Amino acid sequence: MIQVSKKHLAGALQQAARIAGTSSKRDVAETALLLTVEPHGLTITAHRDVHLRQRVPATAQLGMDGTRAVVPAALTAQLVMNCAAAELELAFEKDLVRIISGGSSVTVNTVNEHADHFDRHTGASGGATVALPAADLAAAINGTVYAASSAAFQAVFRGQLITGNADGLRIVASDGYRVAVADLPAPTPAPINAIIHATHTRELARMIAGAGNVTLQVSSTHATVRTEDQQLTLSMPLMHGDYPDYQRVMPETTSTIRLPAAQLRESLARVAIMADKNANNRCALTTENGRVTIAADGDYGRGQDTLQLDDWTGEPPHTIYVNSRFMLEALATMTGQLTLALAGTTRPFVLTSDAPGLRGVLVTLRP
Amino acid sequence: MIQVSKKHLAGALQQAARIAGTSSKRDVAETALLLTVEPHGLTITAHRDVHLRQRVPATAQLGMDGTRAVVPAALTAQLVMNCAAAELELAFEKDLVRIISGGSSVTVNTVNEHADHFDRHTGASGGATVALPAADLAAAINGTVYAASSAAFQAVFRGQLITGNADGLRIVASDGYRVAVADLPAPTPAPINAIIHATHTRELARMIAGAGNVTLQVSSTHATVRTEDQQLTLSMPLMHGDYPDYQRVMPETTSTIRLPAAQLRESLARVAIMADKNANNRCALTTENGRVTIAADGDYGRGQDTLQLDDWTGEPPHTIYVNSRFMLEALATMTGQLTLALAGTTRPFVLTSDAPGLRGVLVTLRP
Repeated sequence: MIQVSKKHLAGALQQAARIAGTSSKRDVAETALLLTVEPHGLTITAHRDVHLRQRVPATAQLGMDGTRAVVPAALTAQLVMNCAAAELELAFEKDLVRIISGGSSVTVNTVNEHADHFDRHTGASGGATVALPAADLAAAINGTVYAASSAAFQAVFRGQLITGNADGLRIVASDGYRVAVADLPAPTPAPINAIIHATHTRELARMIAGAGNVTLQVSSTHATVRTEDQQLTLSMPLMHGDYPDYQRVMPETTSTIRLPAAQLRESLARVAIMADKNANNRCALTTENGRVTIAADGDYGRGQDTLQLDDWTGEPPHTIYVNSRFMLEALATMTGQLTLALAGTTRPFVLTSDAPGLRGVLVTLRP
Repeated sequence: MIQVSKKHLAGALQQAARIAGTSSKRDVAETALLLTVEPHGLTITAHRDVHLRQRVPATAQLGMDGTRAVVPAALTAQLVMNCAAAELELAFEKDLVRIISGGSSVTVNTVNEHADHFDRHTGASGGATVALPAADLAAAINGTVYAASSAAFQAVFRGQLITGNADGLRIVASDGYRVAVADLPAPTPAPINAIIHATHTRELARMIAGAGNVTLQVSSTHATVRTEDQQLTLSMPLMHGDYPDYQRVMPETTSTIRLPAAQLRESLARVAIMADKNANNRCALTTENGRVTIAADGDYGRGQDTLQLDDWTGEPPHTIYVNSRFMLEALATMTGQLTLALAGTTRPFVLTSDAPGLRGVLVTLRP
């Protein structure tokens, strides 16, 4: 018997169940979790395309160290979520795990014949390791992942490029029409160059939200993130292939305009309702007399809004046309004062703001 | 030009847009709304299978009374929702309506050639009329509609039966396996017997939430609900066909058990996770020694919970088997102390509680 808090166990099981999923064509063991009683409590392991290990504080009866059970992931998470009391007990019996809470008891049949599935994980050792605050890593992922493709011709565009050297760590996403870059002041002892699927980086950002410091270790096959307190280890496979040279599309800009990021975001959101979804959500940004006018024409009418600029340099192009959906996604990561750096009406432009280290690059639509 | 509050207009347009929908195979006018400037403000009309008229307080410029415009429903609702300021102005121009708010302006092309679509509504006059509190009518619908079928062999099971006489008003729903009945102390001047599609009664309950008193008028073809303040009129077509004799299945019960409704609901929700979805979500309720035990066995294990009874009468059957999903839906409408009235292990049973006027009847599964 072990005692564990419902809140801790439910949280960890829900994360693990997201990794394990509910169905598998390859191996039903993929949708299961391994529970292991250890001196510090309970370890929950999920092993699918990513490998997750989480530790939950628990009080175990004497002699239970090393006790293991394999249980269906989604069902077990749901059962614990629905427990009546704040504390619960797990009893590891023959062929079943009993969950006891308040007056109620539920038993889950185990599938311990699949235990060796969880020992198959290899490849998380070796390679460069860098330590950084979890919040910074999560912000860098969340600030760039919007630009990754969900259905790209080039598979690597579904991933995020992570590079590291003596200057720091960089996270990149692109779908060929836009690029998002996050620079982090975390120098790596050896060069890093890895591509991780955006599904996995999103999950990582979600899991480490609220953690303190983490280490990122990149081997030849996996990127592994561990929290400082050793409660969480997430190991993600690297994607094969070469990431396109995103630096090539970075424009040499010749003018800038500045205005509050939130204002542009709100105005564009309103006007974009009118934009034609079948024509790249086309909106026009016209700079004139210290103001920018945002306009869209669609089948059902026209939207228009005008904002005062804080400042400008050079000679901003009169009108550029943008994909308003892409621009709104880039603006969602920008805070405080926004700078649009421009290179004429037909070249890409760059968005930066008070959000540290984040840059967005967007193609213009043809005039 | 008329002035109107964003909150009022957005709320009314969203309701109207739900009625109008976004696509129509029959007539695009169905997805449009008629806006009419009247002395009290702005009237918004949607005319599809149901006919909705809503009045929004507005200040109109002189000479605008009777001005009409037909606009796409969903788009217009979305544009108003996204307005920047709390107040907005609508200008009725040639071929377009201009929405002005804060510094921004949006124009929506009108489709005024469809204006006569909205005059086609007839059939809402004549028949018995009864007045009652909106909250009571909404509670009676919300307390029974769960039992209506979403895909029944008999079309009338997708509707709700409304009957009225000198004793009061009654609202019924059934799918043949369960019956839900709500009795309201609202006598009708002449007999009422009407079937309204559950999609429409649900929408009605949602729309009148928060209104004061309403009148319900049932003609030979429509049921029409009007709020006392004349702000809202919803006219719903009656369904054709005869409603099955639900009274025939009401059991003569011979014993009762009582316990807190919330306790049974929570226990059953926990245990039901284990119930077999392919076997009618079968759970067993066993009454013994002043306690009831809820248990379910499924492919992945077993759930069990025991509750103390407050009270019982007669000789409650030892074990009955229920569809836990159906039972949970019935329990969701029950409050305070629950009474299960039973008629043996194979006959239907009846749920009542402190929720006034509400009854649920459920078949038992075979032992």
